[in-house]
Amino acid sequence: MVEELVQRMLNGELRSLARLITLVEGGGEEVPQIMRLIHPYTGRAYCIGVTGPLGVGKSTLVDGLTSLLRGKGLSVGIVAVDPSSPFSGGAILGDRIRMQRHALDKGVFIRSVATRGSSGGLSRSSRGVVKLLDAFGKDIIIVETVGVGQTELDIVEIADTTVVVLMPHTGDAVQTMKAGLLEIGDIMVVNKADWGGAEYLVSELEAVLRQNQRESWWQVPVLATQANNNVGIDALLGEIERHAKALEETGQLSLRRREQRKKEFIRVMEQTIRDRVLDLIVKDEGMAAFLKSVEKGELDPYSASLEALGGLSWEPRRR
Amino acid sequence: MVEELVQRMLNGELRSLARLITLVEGGGEEVPQIMRLIHPYTGRAYCIGVTGPLGVGKSTLVDGLTSLLRGKGLSVGIVAVDPSSPFSGGAILGDRIRMQRHALDKGVFIRSVATRGSSGGLSRSSRGVVKLLDAFGKDIIIVETVGVGQTELDIVEIADTTVVVLMPHTGDAVQTMKAGLLEIGDIMVVNKADWGGAEYLVSELEAVLRQNQRESWWQVPVLATQANNNVGIDALLGEIERHAKALEETGQLSLRRREQRKKEFIRVMEQTIRDRVLDLIVKDEGMAAFLKSVEKGELDPYSASLEALGGLSWEPRRR
Repeated sequence: MVEELVQRMLNGELRSLARLITLVEGGGEEVPQIMRLIHPYTGRAYCIGVTGPLGVGKSTLVDGLTSLLRGKGLSVGIVAVDPSSPFSGGAILGDRIRMQRHALDKGVFIRSVATRGSSGGLSRSSRGVVKLLDAFGKDIIIVETVGVGQTELDIVEIADTTVVVLMPHTGDAVQTMKAGLLEIGDIMVVNKADWGGAEYLVSELEAVLRQNQRESWWQVPVLATQANNNVGIDALLGEIERHAKALEETGQLSLRRREQRKKEFIRVMEQTIRDRVLDLIVKDEGMAAFLKSVEKGELDPYSASLEALGGLSWEPRRR
Repeated sequence: MVEELVQRMLNGELRSLARLITLVEGGGEEVPQIMRLIHPYTGRAYCIGVTGPLGVGKSTLVDGLTSLLRGKGLSVGIVAVDPSSPFSGGAILGDRIRMQRHALDKGVFIRSVATRGSSGGLSRSSRGVVKLLDAFGKDIIIVETVGVGQTELDIVEIADTTVVVLMPHTGDAVQTMKAGLLEIGDIMVVNKADWGGAEYLVSELEAVLRQNQRESWWQVPVLATQANNNVGIDALLGEIERHAKALEETGQLSLRRREQRKKEFIRVMEQTIRDRVLDLIVKDEGMAAFLKSVEKGELDPYSASLEALGGLSWEPRRR
């Protein structure tokens, strides 16, 4: 049944794609099989990450980029990584009326993925959905972080080009640097450039970036945009294309992707182990007793963990 | 040697506290022992978490709160959780000239803790440093997130009262809600209240919070402050005290702390297991072979993980 769904999805059936996404989001037993089956068809899409603080206009910027990409005849998948919560619930996801401009365009597929409850940054679901869109044949996949939380910095684990969006009044260059955002951006954008302080932030960022050039083959550019007025979006796309070309020509693209696969492997292993540990805590009496002592404050978590995990052993498999 | 350090720290020796913090930050083998030794002396401090987007003025607010608390004769420990990076490096931490007002006050201890490289939100170091300050005898510990990244939402795993700081122009109530910030705040603050749009944001937040009251015994208040002009800080401290009292009277404080100990136990176990897995990947040939196949893209990470972890087994310990 999963085989059939995957085959149909690979043949371009939108409904099968949607069902597979639902399965991947559910995180059930089928996930490894789905990932194994689509694996040979992945790695062809180019992935753009768009991240930055709350309220800087990321969605509007992604909207503008999408229009330009569609104008060039490229198909686009958009994954909005959303730390939505039980509190905000489904209603907020349902509210997602933005991007209406592309709602009827079959060349654009938009999906919000909730990350709440996953540990370690970008959720398995987000990665899974990106892979599905890749296998489905989207030329460009844009991954956008929607709020604060665990995903801003981890977007580099999935994106080929990372765009960091700031605006005036969300902190100066030093604060941005502290937050780790300067380190991950391949392209920096100061949006709402019609606001006071934008020019100053641009030149401040440029100064800091000049002093801290990360890679010999790429000087991170700083662009001013007004996503609301459609100003500067074409320049941004131009820089993304220039970065993609530089990645390709220097061989950095395959190095980056290699590193990403490694990180993903480790994340998947961690998550698998985590699931087993949580399962044990629920089911195993001995573990439950440790947990109880810790909850009551009788035992500190470090000693408890050392003791409880004493029974963990490993017979490494050979490949 | 660790015993002696702990004893000296418990006797109030500042130098021993500093050395223990360095040990805990280093994450070495001594950590479980240190945690076991200080465990009986923890749980007495009241922990205030201050979180929110980049650039809203959290540090200035913490500065103001600290002055008020000192005025009441309470000792204060401040832990600034900083997702600092190899890129930004130690210089930024060193730059931390803020809080100079309290630099010479022996009743205030300030420490920046880097979180980079840790997975799953608040780092072990941050939790460890909070516990050390608690055992050292600080009355109040303020944990402040410094940037974007993994820590904003996880601060509830450590704080008794969580203060979420926003300002006008960092997104509306719906965006804040999406970001999960409304869910974690026991008190919401709109700082920079002299800016346009502040009143509107306050009433918008109030409306959303009225519709989504989380707990019968506490209606989350929304305060307007101007930390730079020292406006509204006394009201904020008043609300924190009112929340602390409500937590105490309803028995919620011990429930919260119980839940926090549980979460910490799970995090510590995860981290311990993670360290072992990473260690295996480096040292074990079989695991290295899996990793290589994944890096090359021959094998998808999900199948590889399932296969590699096939040899994981568990002999649960009894307690």
